[in-house]
Amino acid sequence: MITTDILIIGAGPTGLFTVFEAGLLKLRCHLIDALPQPGGQCSEIYPKKPIYDIPAYPEILAGDLTGKLMEQIKQFEPGFTLGERAETIEKQEDETFIVTTNKGTKHQAKVVAIAGGLGSFEPRKPPIPNIVNFEDKGVEYMIREPEMYRNKKVVISGGGDSALDWSIFLTDIAAEVTLIHRRNEFRGALDSVEKVQELKDAGKIKMITPAEVKGIIGKDKVEGVSVVQNGGEEFTIETDHFIPLFGLSPKLGPIANWGLEIEKNAIKVDNALDYQTNIPGIYAIGDVNTYPGKLKLILCGFHEATLMCQSAFQRIFPDKKYVMKYTTVGGVDGFDGTRKEAPKAVVKKID
Amino acid sequence: MITTDILIIGAGPTGLFTVFEAGLLKLRCHLIDALPQPGGQCSEIYPKKPIYDIPAYPEILAGDLTGKLMEQIKQFEPGFTLGERAETIEKQEDETFIVTTNKGTKHQAKVVAIAGGLGSFEPRKPPIPNIVNFEDKGVEYMIREPEMYRNKKVVISGGGDSALDWSIFLTDIAAEVTLIHRRNEFRGALDSVEKVQELKDAGKIKMITPAEVKGIIGKDKVEGVSVVQNGGEEFTIETDHFIPLFGLSPKLGPIANWGLEIEKNAIKVDNALDYQTNIPGIYAIGDVNTYPGKLKLILCGFHEATLMCQSAFQRIFPDKKYVMKYTTVGGVDGFDGTRKEAPKAVVKKID
Repeated sequence: MITTDILIIGAGPTGLFTVFEAGLLKLRCHLIDALPQPGGQCSEIYPKKPIYDIPAYPEILAGDLTGKLMEQIKQFEPGFTLGERAETIEKQEDETFIVTTNKGTKHQAKVVAIAGGLGSFEPRKPPIPNIVNFEDKGVEYMIREPEMYRNKKVVISGGGDSALDWSIFLTDIAAEVTLIHRRNEFRGALDSVEKVQELKDAGKIKMITPAEVKGIIGKDKVEGVSVVQNGGEEFTIETDHFIPLFGLSPKLGPIANWGLEIEKNAIKVDNALDYQTNIPGIYAIGDVNTYPGKLKLILCGFHEATLMCQSAFQRIFPDKKYVMKYTTVGGVDGFDGTRKEAPKAVVKKID
Repeated sequence: MITTDILIIGAGPTGLFTVFEAGLLKLRCHLIDALPQPGGQCSEIYPKKPIYDIPAYPEILAGDLTGKLMEQIKQFEPGFTLGERAETIEKQEDETFIVTTNKGTKHQAKVVAIAGGLGSFEPRKPPIPNIVNFEDKGVEYMIREPEMYRNKKVVISGGGDSALDWSIFLTDIAAEVTLIHRRNEFRGALDSVEKVQELKDAGKIKMITPAEVKGIIGKDKVEGVSVVQNGGEEFTIETDHFIPLFGLSPKLGPIANWGLEIEKNAIKVDNALDYQTNIPGIYAIGDVNTYPGKLKLILCGFHEATLMCQSAFQRIFPDKKYVMKYTTVGGVDGFDGTRKEAPKAVVKKID
């Protein structure tokens, strides 16, 4: 059982910044995210795209935003359960919550902060009848650990940035990379498309277009896929892995069954006070919540996280009074023993 | 008469970021601030101090924060009335407001956003009976335009960072710089204290300590000050300017008389919706406002400004419907003709 003060569901920008604000209050955090790395959409969907409305950043790439937040919270030593989806929640007699993931990992905390964004990102699956039988047996909808493809044969299917970028990346790792797409045209960053063209010309990526994977072949695990190219005859290619990268679509998922008030696919919260849900001790912050005037913006999530942490502090320590200190004045004490503080003024004689 | 869409009282971080969020909605802004430059406290009081709780900035100097915000809003061409204090507000029959400063500058707008921080910074004045007679006649409590001291004799009084830094700065401009302080010890950044010591040793700053200015001498303007050093006899030194830098203390000031609901020296707003005050069309954002759970943090001001702008848009264009677009998706169109946008994905054949 993982125990912590605030259990955060969702490791996007709002979830990550929560660790900082909680840390200032000496509260520890642990984050659960279905994606294999922190950053949410910013890391998974558009890491190389610029954001222009983060305050005091005239422009920042989404991936760099995640990096900056990870650097900012490092000193507060957050824990992570990644690649697992929060599935169930149970309130205990002692008022704590136990959250269990789809892989059975259990977490216990007095406060749960849902920072789940638009939901957990579920892959769009291709319409191949027997595909579910091969999930985690050679079929992966998302690349969690590139090393598992070392010296293996890999078939990637898709025509967007993910398919292009992972095809490029895996040429250095896999024994063989085949890219299958139903059109001849790919849609992505210009340099990615050009790089794939180059690797194809160099014989490092096998390209089959326009084509579709129609079936998966294998006993206990993937041994090959059957393909139809350009309306022709179905043929088989041998492979150890089949990775369809057709995009991710967000689903509120199991959280929808936690007994929370839901409106327009978002969780209703009390924005007049502390962004708490209808269940005391469970808060919802960032894009996952809704209230009158709500804007699904990262900068709003930062504010909501900050106010939420104050309320969480009162819930966890009902008898303690917290007096806010500005970081410029009071500095920041990390759980890792580090201290940041403004250079002190000196009192010095001039003579 | 200066006319604009949103008139912002206070050019600190919250006021500045309002320009950006308003700009996304194609609303123009004009800012009034009593200080001679934008940035509020961040520029005037602690420009060289680090802030640790700006989201995605593990550390940023307050002065740099101002710089980044100015860069971010540049494209939306904000107007500024600086060095003037918003004094009176009148609601017109056409529902617009006219705000007049202490120097008589008039501004008209449909929406007023008060982002006044802790108030307008009023100088702490030394207890010299006739000092008020010489204000703007050689006595200045704040340096607005260093050039006015070129080739003049200047007496600065004070023992903190402002007194040290301005003494250093003016040695290159003024004919003579005298620094008077009631102690031998100065309190400030180590390098400032050391620099003043150096300039004193080089004869570029005249130092009189421990000493106090007791009176001002002159007919229509400052001609000298009378000083007592170390409890001795009062003596006179000739000077064109006397600049007491004893710090600034924030006062809500004339805004307190605008008919707004005030609580604990702050303006009450509706945090459940749009941070509007009890007077429709007047909003209060950032440290100047109060509501249940309020935290006087810069990051909260950013959020409040953002939600406020949406409400302002509806007030200014009651018939238009605004559909929010993410800057990453829709880009940012500046009023100056510039456009920022994410590099477009290409659709390109690979063959």
